[in-house]
Amino acid sequence: ALLEANGNLSCRCAKTTRAFISPSKYSSIEVRPVGSSCRRLEVVIKLKSLERVCLDPNTPWVKKLLQDLPNLRKKEAPQ
Amino acid sequence: ALLEANGNLSCRCAKTTRAFISPSKYSSIEVRPVGSSCRRLEVVIKLKSLERVCLDPNTPWVKKLLQDLPNLRKKEAPQ
Repeated sequence: ALLEANGNLSCRCAKTTRAFISPSKYSSIEVRPVGSSCRRLEVVIKLKSLERVCLDPNTPWVKKLLQDLPNLRKKEAPQ
Repeated sequence: ALLEANGNLSCRCAKTTRAFISPSKYSSIEVRPVGSSCRRLEVVIKLKSLERVCLDPNTPWVKKLLQDLPNLRKKEAPQ
């Protein structure tokens, strides 16, 4: 348990959300790969309000978002 | 041309690199989807040195990196 705690010292996300966030609400997606200093994949969305929200990487819509990243296009906001 | 310029006012990357960056050198990957304020996909890597580097999203190793994001694991540094 101590080892695991040490291995997660530099994790960013204390808690994550499964709630869907519309692409019109965020400007970027940050992915922090599993590494020696945080032993879980972290996905952080930066909202246009500049707030950051941690997503649960195992939630279906987040998985799909990650898969779609190479070709991601956001719909333009309606005029 | 003017329209295009306006559409790219909030792009972050003035230039990008195709050079390979080892996973041991960076802590996160930020993806900025195509949107109304920047009409290209931008991929920004945050190095452990805290420097940010813009990657060319059309370079093969970067494409593969984006595809692998959902399952990305970094190898631990050798002891």
